[in-house]
Amino acid sequence: MNYIAVRGRMFALLDPERGGRKGRAVDFFIMGLIFLSILSIILETVAPIRQQYGLWFDRLEVFTVAVFTIEYILRIWTITAKEGYSSVRGRLRYMTSYHMVIDLLAVLPFFIGGFVDLRFLRVVRIFRIIRVFKLARYSKSLQTMGYVLRKKKPDLIISTIATGILLVLASSAIYFIEGPVQPEEFSSIPASFWWGVVTMTTVGYGDVTPVTTAGRIIGSLVAFLGIGLFALPASILASGFIEEATQEEKPRPYVYCPHCGEELPNKSR
Amino acid sequence: MNYIAVRGRMFALLDPERGGRKGRAVDFFIMGLIFLSILSIILETVAPIRQQYGLWFDRLEVFTVAVFTIEYILRIWTITAKEGYSSVRGRLRYMTSYHMVIDLLAVLPFFIGGFVDLRFLRVVRIFRIIRVFKLARYSKSLQTMGYVLRKKKPDLIISTIATGILLVLASSAIYFIEGPVQPEEFSSIPASFWWGVVTMTTVGYGDVTPVTTAGRIIGSLVAFLGIGLFALPASILASGFIEEATQEEKPRPYVYCPHCGEELPNKSR
Amino acid sequence: MNYIAVRGRMFALLDPERGGRKGRAVDFFIMGLIFLSILSIILETVAPIRQQYGLWFDRLEVFTVAVFTIEYILRIWTITAKEGYSSVRGRLRYMTSYHMVIDLLAVLPFFIGGFVDLRFLRVVRIFRIIRVFKLARYSKSLQTMGYVLRKKKPDLIISTIATGILLVLASSAIYFIEGPVQPEEFSSIPASFWWGVVTMTTVGYGDVTPVTTAGRIIGSLVAFLGIGLFALPASILASGFIEEATQEEKPRPYVYCPHCGEELPNKSR
Amino acid sequence: MNYIAVRGRMFALLDPERGGRKGRAVDFFIMGLIFLSILSIILETVAPIRQQYGLWFDRLEVFTVAVFTIEYILRIWTITAKEGYSSVRGRLRYMTSYHMVIDLLAVLPFFIGGFVDLRFLRVVRIFRIIRVFKLARYSKSLQTMGYVLRKKKPDLIISTIATGILLVLASSAIYFIEGPVQPEEFSSIPASFWWGVVTMTTVGYGDVTPVTTAGRIIGSLVAFLGIGLFALPASILASGFIEEATQEEKPRPYVYCPHCGEELPNKSR
Repeated sequence: MNYIAVRGRMFALLDPERGGRKGRAVDFFIMGLIFLSILSIILETVAPIRQQYGLWFDRLEVFTVAVFTIEYILRIWTITAKEGYSSVRGRLRYMTSYHMVIDLLAVLPFFIGGFVDLRFLRVVRIFRIIRVFKLARYSKSLQTMGYVLRKKKPDLIISTIATGILLVLASSAIYFIEGPVQPEEFSSIPASFWWGVVTMTTVGYGDVTPVTTAGRIIGSLVAFLGIGLFALPASILASGFIEEATQEEKPRPYVYCPHCGEELPNKSR
Repeated sequence: MNYIAVRGRMFALLDPERGGRKGRAVDFFIMGLIFLSILSIILETVAPIRQQYGLWFDRLEVFTVAVFTIEYILRIWTITAKEGYSSVRGRLRYMTSYHMVIDLLAVLPFFIGGFVDLRFLRVVRIFRIIRVFKLARYSKSLQTMGYVLRKKKPDLIISTIATGILLVLASSAIYFIEGPVQPEEFSSIPASFWWGVVTMTTVGYGDVTPVTTAGRIIGSLVAFLGIGLFALPASILASGFIEEATQEEKPRPYVYCPHCGEELPNKSR
Repeated sequence: MNYIAVRGRMFALLDPERGGRKGRAVDFFIMGLIFLSILSIILETVAPIRQQYGLWFDRLEVFTVAVFTIEYILRIWTITAKEGYSSVRGRLRYMTSYHMVIDLLAVLPFFIGGFVDLRFLRVVRIFRIIRVFKLARYSKSLQTMGYVLRKKKPDLIISTIATGILLVLASSAIYFIEGPVQPEEFSSIPASFWWGVVTMTTVGYGDVTPVTTAGRIIGSLVAFLGIGLFALPASILASGFIEEATQEEKPRPYVYCPHCGEELPNKSR
Repeated sequence: MNYIAVRGRMFALLDPERGGRKGRAVDFFIMGLIFLSILSIILETVAPIRQQYGLWFDRLEVFTVAVFTIEYILRIWTITAKEGYSSVRGRLRYMTSYHMVIDLLAVLPFFIGGFVDLRFLRVVRIFRIIRVFKLARYSKSLQTMGYVLRKKKPDLIISTIATGILLVLASSAIYFIEGPVQPEEFSSIPASFWWGVVTMTTVGYGDVTPVTTAGRIIGSLVAFLGIGLFALPASILASGFIEEATQEEKPRPYVYCPHCGEELPNKSR
């Protein structure tokens, strides 16, 4: 077996859509390892568990990083087998892609050491779990969602901008009104953003609340506008999903001549 | 009256759809007893009520368990009258069905005794209330809901998984940021899950809140994503209900030939 | 002018749809008085305002009750002019109708006196504001809403029952888990209902929160189910409004024969 | 170049739809300055930033006001170039238009001086950001939203009135019930409005909560009605967006005769 064939086979093995049964096994193994790794990162933060099973966490860490590093190197090596990535520039382009940067950041902290906080980046790998859907029947749902979100992007962007404008206005108003009374909680407009977000999203922790009458009137307005904040994206997405569903179920209708049986041009759509 | 006839009559009596007027009376009696039993379980936990009417609660308990036990035994005895359940295996299959396990669990704590906490299981009997819908005109609504939920299952599962991924990311991020400042509230990632859920669902108790600027920025993002958490299932279900309603109201259209008056094959749907 | 004519004119004057310009003036006068009365009831509860303008509130009270009493008596007197209410039984039937009972309850506290708390009933008069819609173009919107609510009643009832079942289960579970740890907050299942409602509706005051791990897991489940609590009625109503809108805009389609020009029977709907 | 030509060119430069490349440059410059100005207003409230960069904020302030004043004067001068605004009355009408009043209020505080609180008005200038949409492809989305909001105005007004009525009833009820127990929090009906809003919108700060059983029952009802408060506008807007989308996508269908190929009058719509 020559170099090209080995590389091609390796590439197919790492590609969830081409690897066949073996490829899927590799994929599930890496998925499982990501799950296990994230679970260990989560559990490791619990003091009693860390004290008792610390050694096992370290061993899993070494094993995980080893597998992920090998996977990373293999991916960079074999990518030249893919159409459009055959040159050195293609390989560089691949290395700077979103997935590969995440993959690098997932193992880098181990080699650099010391920067324990960067471990959080490994948690971001959880997004790769979505890959599992590529194999399953959920792919159609994901496509529909993606399609709806893309189609309704301008509407959703306008909702977001409107939300941002309201947030700035609400926070400025509450700062000017409540600032003098509660100088610690509403010390500045940026500090008041926290209150604005907590009220607009109707989370309402209660750690920062208006106490003056004027402040409470502003707060009431913001809370009611928060309802619109829920209603707008919900109704936009609903209309998107319904349009999508309607289009799926109503295929182009063909009309046949009742006499000769030939298809007639249907201009109604 | 021979054995088969008695068993068949008994079976019909316990079946809400076959029992006729008498069967419905039996059904309503058991429904009422379930309601009464649940009400007594709820009220029994109120100390002053328990002290004053404790004896009556105990008497109702004995009566309820007696009736439910008789009902349970009768159901197992008569099930063989149903098509497909005539053999011993059929009876065993029936005994391990969802409804029968609940029915057994509802009376078991009384006989085992001592394990007072198991009484909670009787509350689960409330699910038997759903049976009441079989009798009423609400059955169509329930069918529609069930149909919509089943049809939109993949979409709802993806929403749930996305929620789970966001929860892990949010809790990890807040742990890394707020953990050093509030070591008691954000002692570990699993402990931070509580904050994540309370914020994403916009419940916002306020028992655990971020105090650092970075933590509040994370909190704001999570709160806004919580809006999407509401918008997605609402819009998915809305599209499901509308598709369902549209299909109901638009029956297959028939097209008639304008010349001979005969029905033409309509390929448009 | 004889008795019948006076009564008929009076009746028309009090009926918003028959009174013409004068009738509308009477209607707006009573509407305005209701508004003013409610405003005074609200403001009267503010101590400094009551101390300063107490006399004026009392005077407005006497005037309001006088007008409402006269209106009430006139309505009962003139109702016999309406078709189907001409007999004494018709008058009694009218007196026990929803609107007339409210009207009576709105003035009764003044005559009974002493029972100041009954004044709250006057606030209920605010519902009479809805009458204003009869005059305006908003009537169609109200009709649509009423139609949608009536059409989706079974679905909404099932949502409510499901909510009730979940509330009982959630409160029972949290009582059994958190009760031993927080015996004051979760003293009984009925006491735990408060926590259940506050969490399911995502209000989340934070006055009662679970502190144990098991309690927080239950709390998380309830909070997520609270999202469904929002999504279900929203999507049910959305489908209702859309069905209604679709039916309005798509009148029964007529199909014409392309040859003779005669209308063909359209069985597609 | 004569006066008319200069004025016309100036007018076109300030009009986002006529100015061409130069006009768009002017527009983006003013947009940027608005953004920068708002950002400086926000950051200026942070004490450490103000102390260090105070001088720069003041300089930006002078520059911003200078540009906005020149823009304001130019707009008033050149408006007479627009059809229907050529007279002095047209100029006065323009000066009292929404946008021009905002523009005046945005620079006025600087000239009046002393009244620092009026600076808040500059934040209102953020509304001018909406102008940016005129340039972008988002205009269609904004038009659709505006159309939907206008079409569903009666429904939304009724929702708002219903919300107001419920708020008055809820606040009155809680005042009568909780007032005697918590005289500070529920001192009057207007004071109880705050609790009503916080509960109905499901914000739930927890600064004011009912403690009596009756108060908690009222609170539970209000919280559940709060769900309807979300469901109504969401479903109304959803139906509006869907109607809009349906009308866009379904153009008038044309039906052709299967024999002669001529278009037939379609009365189905």
